Amino acid sequence: MTRQAHRPAYVGVDVGGTKVLAVRVDDSGAVEAAATRSMPGRSAASDELETAVVATVREVAGERAPRAVGVAAAGLVDAAGERFLFGAHLPWRDAPVRRRLEQRLAGADWAVGGPAPRVVLDNDANCAAHAELVAGAAHGVDAALLVTIGTGIGGALVLGGRVVRGAHGLAGEFGHMQVVPDGLACECGLRGCWEQYCSGRALERVTRVALGRHLDGPEVTALAEAGDEVARQAFASVGTWLGVGVAGLVSAFDPELVVVGGGVSAVGELLLAPARAALADSLQGTAHRPVPALLPAALGPEAGAVGAALLARAALTERRGA
Amino acid sequence: MTRQAHRPAYVGVDVGGTKVLAVRVDDSGAVEAAATRSMPGRSAASDELETAVVATVREVAGERAPRAVGVAAAGLVDAAGERFLFGAHLPWRDAPVRRRLEQRLAGADWAVGGPAPRVVLDNDANCAAHAELVAGAAHGVDAALLVTIGTGIGGALVLGGRVVRGAHGLAGEFGHMQVVPDGLACECGLRGCWEQYCSGRALERVTRVALGRHLDGPEVTALAEAGDEVARQAFASVGTWLGVGVAGLVSAFDPELVVVGGGVSAVGELLLAPARAALADSLQGTAHRPVPALLPAALGPEAGAVGAALLARAALTERRGA
Repeated sequence: MTRQAHRPAYVGVDVGGTKVLAVRVDDSGAVEAAATRSMPGRSAASDELETAVVATVREVAGERAPRAVGVAAAGLVDAAGERFLFGAHLPWRDAPVRRRLEQRLAGADWAVGGPAPRVVLDNDANCAAHAELVAGAAHGVDAALLVTIGTGIGGALVLGGRVVRGAHGLAGEFGHMQVVPDGLACECGLRGCWEQYCSGRALERVTRVALGRHLDGPEVTALAEAGDEVARQAFASVGTWLGVGVAGLVSAFDPELVVVGGGVSAVGELLLAPARAALADSLQGTAHRPVPALLPAALGPEAGAVGAALLARAALTERRGA
Repeated sequence: MTRQAHRPAYVGVDVGGTKVLAVRVDDSGAVEAAATRSMPGRSAASDELETAVVATVREVAGERAPRAVGVAAAGLVDAAGERFLFGAHLPWRDAPVRRRLEQRLAGADWAVGGPAPRVVLDNDANCAAHAELVAGAAHGVDAALLVTIGTGIGGALVLGGRVVRGAHGLAGEFGHMQVVPDGLACECGLRGCWEQYCSGRALERVTRVALGRHLDGPEVTALAEAGDEVARQAFASVGTWLGVGVAGLVSAFDPELVVVGGGVSAVGELLLAPARAALADSLQGTAHRPVPALLPAALGPEAGAVGAALLARAALTERRGA
């Protein structure tokens, strides 16, 4: 047996609207392996989604079951970390996802025997925030706001150096705050939600309206990076809405730092510069108060999966300590 | 000397846009005396405002200087509790208000000798939240949101049973979150701020547009309580905007309870019932998550002043303990 096989493995899985991404991390949180599966979002069956989670975990874990698996899911997770309650882009509805995945992983036919992995479930943005806190842009920060812009908007609040959970584990659901009265219809059933104006889908919509044809987010990003003015304006629109929404949250929380992650943020300053301008323009009394820095997430699109793995490792430690 | 004169007195002063209200409280926080002065808001001179604070403190304190005086001010107070940074309805601008008032109170000619009072300065909504936490509607609650509707909107967040301060002491400034893009102009210089749609001024504006004449908040309240349909509709409009804004904050914080105070809330259910309806209608995924209770503040319009007195008393205890 190699030394590799003896080292405890921690795996994190990010379950998003369009794909499942699993990573294996070492003790420091560095990514040793990654695997992805594309998913059709809400139209996927729960079973299909869970099968994809197990398959990606097996792919990165190798022959032996990992010690712990963290699952970062795009939507509402209960305070106990047992049930996935609701997510506009995923098929689970009030489902005991943590236990189900733990049973599936225990039943997987691992080549090397050992204890079944413990599974930890949390909201994807909370996981990304945990990763940025432990090893990223918010390292050592006491009060921070994290906004993740992917298919929709994820978010997390950090106070006292910890991710705020709220009374029912649902804090940080920024995407469905109303920013336009009677605005665009949202998949959640409401109108005028922030993520209709500030997300990958918003980016695609703005581009489609301007060009008359559909491009997906990565295509718009590539065009913008190549200097295309329509694509740049689309990022400016999304970035401006990012700044406006962040200004409201800054008024409410007064963070020292705002960290922006998610796939849409990969374009960098084309999104962040208009966001900073709108934040400064939309915040009350800036002659008399500091405007917090708005920085890109350090861990990139793997932050959710890495954070899930780190939370799973931390949960094992707490159980040993209890 | 009477027993009264030996008991330590704690005084709280609420410095708002239209009046200064001082209360003397006993050890349990019960109000023993109150005094008010009307003020012309932003057009008052700083000196005039500070003179009014000292006068109301003297009026409720009697012959002997109180042990501690808490000052609840409508606007941004720095994290150290030393400076009043900015408030749309008050004349102070980045002013060392805590020290100034402590000096003025030390120099006041008290009939009975004794140590000069310690002064504590905080945001008015934080003070009201502290009072509701210690002795009001949020007693024993871990995660709560408090919204105070007076001339404008004040607010506070409670997490872990404590008022959240934020990185610079500025958390809870909900009034200037944008709720309508390019909306009504606000005194703060921005447009579409929440308090333009949900405040005493909004109530007056909606009534004025409907009736063609100006009524102040208490007059609109009296009309609504007498069954006047225009006044009731004005409260329904303000209440609906209250619910929409609260829904956004509930998405962000996930409190177990929302407490609504301030002068406009004195009308009770005519405001709170439409607010509850709009909260339930504006919150994502309510089939899968609890909608927090929305309750009136228990301590009424004196909550800010009472909370300031309780904070001042707590600061004395902490100093003794240190």
